[in-house]
Amino acid sequence: MKLNLKQIADLIPNSKIINTETPEKIEFDSVKKLSEANENSISIFNTKSNQKEFKDSKAIVYLINEDVLSLVNKPSLLVPNVDIALGKVLDLFFPPKKSIGKRGEFISISKTAEIEDNVDIGNFVSVGENSKIGKNSIIEDGVKIGDNVRIGENARIGMNTVFHGDIIIGKNFTVFGNSTFGGDGFKFVTLEKIHYKIPQIAKVIIGDNVEIGSNCSVDRGGIEDTVIGDGCKFDNMVHVGHNVKIGKNVIIAGQSGVAGSTIIGDNCLIGGACAISDHLVLPANSIVAGGTGMRTSPKEPNVFIGWDWGLTYPEFQKARVNIKHLIGFNKIISRIKEIEKKMGIENKE
Amino acid sequence: MKLNLKQIADLIPNSKIINTETPEKIEFDSVKKLSEANENSISIFNTKSNQKEFKDSKAIVYLINEDVLSLVNKPSLLVPNVDIALGKVLDLFFPPKKSIGKRGEFISISKTAEIEDNVDIGNFVSVGENSKIGKNSIIEDGVKIGDNVRIGENARIGMNTVFHGDIIIGKNFTVFGNSTFGGDGFKFVTLEKIHYKIPQIAKVIIGDNVEIGSNCSVDRGGIEDTVIGDGCKFDNMVHVGHNVKIGKNVIIAGQSGVAGSTIIGDNCLIGGACAISDHLVLPANSIVAGGTGMRTSPKEPNVFIGWDWGLTYPEFQKARVNIKHLIGFNKIISRIKEIEKKMGIENKE
Amino acid sequence: MKLNLKQIADLIPNSKIINTETPEKIEFDSVKKLSEANENSISIFNTKSNQKEFKDSKAIVYLINEDVLSLVNKPSLLVPNVDIALGKVLDLFFPPKKSIGKRGEFISISKTAEIEDNVDIGNFVSVGENSKIGKNSIIEDGVKIGDNVRIGENARIGMNTVFHGDIIIGKNFTVFGNSTFGGDGFKFVTLEKIHYKIPQIAKVIIGDNVEIGSNCSVDRGGIEDTVIGDGCKFDNMVHVGHNVKIGKNVIIAGQSGVAGSTIIGDNCLIGGACAISDHLVLPANSIVAGGTGMRTSPKEPNVFIGWDWGLTYPEFQKARVNIKHLIGFNKIISRIKEIEKKMGIENKE
Repeated sequence: MKLNLKQIADLIPNSKIINTETPEKIEFDSVKKLSEANENSISIFNTKSNQKEFKDSKAIVYLINEDVLSLVNKPSLLVPNVDIALGKVLDLFFPPKKSIGKRGEFISISKTAEIEDNVDIGNFVSVGENSKIGKNSIIEDGVKIGDNVRIGENARIGMNTVFHGDIIIGKNFTVFGNSTFGGDGFKFVTLEKIHYKIPQIAKVIIGDNVEIGSNCSVDRGGIEDTVIGDGCKFDNMVHVGHNVKIGKNVIIAGQSGVAGSTIIGDNCLIGGACAISDHLVLPANSIVAGGTGMRTSPKEPNVFIGWDWGLTYPEFQKARVNIKHLIGFNKIISRIKEIEKKMGIENKE
Repeated sequence: MKLNLKQIADLIPNSKIINTETPEKIEFDSVKKLSEANENSISIFNTKSNQKEFKDSKAIVYLINEDVLSLVNKPSLLVPNVDIALGKVLDLFFPPKKSIGKRGEFISISKTAEIEDNVDIGNFVSVGENSKIGKNSIIEDGVKIGDNVRIGENARIGMNTVFHGDIIIGKNFTVFGNSTFGGDGFKFVTLEKIHYKIPQIAKVIIGDNVEIGSNCSVDRGGIEDTVIGDGCKFDNMVHVGHNVKIGKNVIIAGQSGVAGSTIIGDNCLIGGACAISDHLVLPANSIVAGGTGMRTSPKEPNVFIGWDWGLTYPEFQKARVNIKHLIGFNKIISRIKEIEKKMGIENKE
Repeated sequence: MKLNLKQIADLIPNSKIINTETPEKIEFDSVKKLSEANENSISIFNTKSNQKEFKDSKAIVYLINEDVLSLVNKPSLLVPNVDIALGKVLDLFFPPKKSIGKRGEFISISKTAEIEDNVDIGNFVSVGENSKIGKNSIIEDGVKIGDNVRIGENARIGMNTVFHGDIIIGKNFTVFGNSTFGGDGFKFVTLEKIHYKIPQIAKVIIGDNVEIGSNCSVDRGGIEDTVIGDGCKFDNMVHVGHNVKIGKNVIIAGQSGVAGSTIIGDNCLIGGACAISDHLVLPANSIVAGGTGMRTSPKEPNVFIGWDWGLTYPEFQKARVNIKHLIGFNKIISRIKEIEKKMGIENKE
């Protein structure tokens, strides 16, 4: 499949062709990064730090932004946002899968389940009682859907995903393989060293336009629901404990966890390998850098960083530079002692 | 389904009805937290910090404890432990699933496997050679049981759980979706940069009354077994390496890991996002706060906290307050230098 | 099954029988660690710290190395590497499974897929379009192989492993249960708080002789492939983001993650519970101790340790000892202030 620069320019609002008079003659059949592009590729150039790679790149045409415009001397398309433009080009080459209503082999669907129109159901899929799958969804091989699960239209459910039961999900939901929804929340009461389980009977509620990665776990609530708001995007191996409320448009990167009953405000951005403790409130619009532990609830949104430090980003930057002084800290104390001794100050250690 | 306060009081030993003369007329059909309760709900009130929510709550009746008794002016049931009482009420509304001996579709059971009486087996379940499932168990959809796996009576095995083989599990075992048992331990020997695998041939042994969350991994041992004691409860995404011995009644919260050959004593409590290094011994009754890294074996049980700190909880509390001094540490050193200069002390840096 | 010392000695090059004249009469039927061995066991003794266990051990014979030779007064086999020798003995008692070309029940294989000779395919396995499985492989129960997946010869694919599609894997690949390959990379562009997905269309490429644990996630690339080199060994719950390039013979222990676009050089050794940030370059032959966060790219290979510290191993050792001084840090500052006051130095805080 070949596309040309004219076609792409027509597709992207407010784009501008530069360094060529014949965009319809600039054809390409692949999308590659600068260093991997060949003379049949379109590539992207959006930061001056890639100036050398751009110079050496063999691509026939580039998606560029204002930041690098002054450096560009090859046929290119100036666009408002390179990533968005790239997405549109990729969608032409690799159109997202659409459901066609096909059925795999070895399927077990409860009589009380409802499958709406034009849903693809893969091999080895089960759907439990009173569950419903919205139209135009793709349910991949090995997905297990328990009882009382409602999945909105246009879902893409990755292979071997498990829905234990009592789950409500909005439209345009995506999840990748081996994720688990609706396992019991982790709640035991200990009497004389024996741990007694407290039943977990509330739901998992997920909004519209949510995407979740592979090998994630989202637990059902105790007596209140676990909630994930519209527009949230989670990476792989994200753990969400019971009763957690996550607002709208929250990003959580890989291997981060949110412990039970914590509330995450709208538009928070949580990096990878973070641990958000239980029963906290993270204010809307907070940023939690990768590798951060939150042990207390901040009063105001800010940028937080550091596993055990409880600092904001500027504080952390300064403190971390000084961590090297800890290496010789015992010597510093000796120096203070010597001063005190010479001055006749009583050692107050 | 409706229940009344009299029924609940009769169910819970040492409970006391307060603020009503007609408990049989106080009926409810749902269990909700204070802020979500309506006039047909029972709710719970067990800490003074929820005083405002209690005042505003619309519940018709409350489970309360001694701590809040002086604040309670509405019909309530005073109980020895609110969580235990709540569990009993929830069990009435949502009785735990019981097996009835049903069989799903598309099942593959080895001829040498033994399934005891009254076991439910879901769709897409396989059971390998010489494996055995105890009576009254529920094996959910997609569970894969390899060879030589023994699961005790009254188990509930969540969807898509994998048992690789050579595993012995006691009675009353619960596990949620996509967990994996019996993968090979991680042991390689490196000669001239090539890593040679050392065979892992020992078992996974799990005691009675154990509950494990979703997406967990428990590896088989090398030449000695990996052991999890009676009464242990693990949250989601817990990793247990080969040869690990975990004592009785140990709690491990989400995303924590125990590396190979480590020994965890009875009744230890390990929070979420902890990393317990390999070949350690954690004394019985130790508490490891969430987000803690254990790099060395403590001699005595204590409360440990901090990823890189190696401190007990009281030490950590004091050190963490002082972490802010690191921000201006370079200035402190300048001050010492100036003192030394004025005093004519030789700089010993 | 019984083996004798003579048979083992013949099997292991450069081994030497000691403390017995009749090795063919020293028979054993099990391989146990020192404390668990009985009079029919072979055991291993390779470090002086196990001297007491060796003395008390009931094993009939031991695999030993030069380090402990002076302590050994029982029938033993002196070998160049105890672990390698142990592996050879274990392989005799527990020969690795070999494929015999068997087929399970309920299998769905696309007409365009190719299964080479002598491949075992378990129950509930699906293989998508244009996918290929190399000869002598074992595909366990519940494995889901999407479209355009190529798995080289002699693979062992653990139960319920998911391959989403567009994946190329070399020969001798091993993976354990519930791992996921080829989920979309985590890439969104945010415009006015809404996160727009950028299509992820590149492959996952895995070399020869790679072993991966259970519950791992390896994402497909955006427009460049995610690559794992020959000879890599990963433990459980390892997360590999999109576009990551991992060199040859890299070890990654449990629950560690490598974020998007990072490059890991050949022969790196990464411990458990590590977080390697995105867009970094880790030089070949680096060692990252367990529980380490890498936020920046080091210029030279070294041993790195500490979550937030950015220190090498010797620096960390010294700094960590001094962390205790943070506990009384506020008092140290008071002492400096008092000195300054007595000397009439202006407080510069």
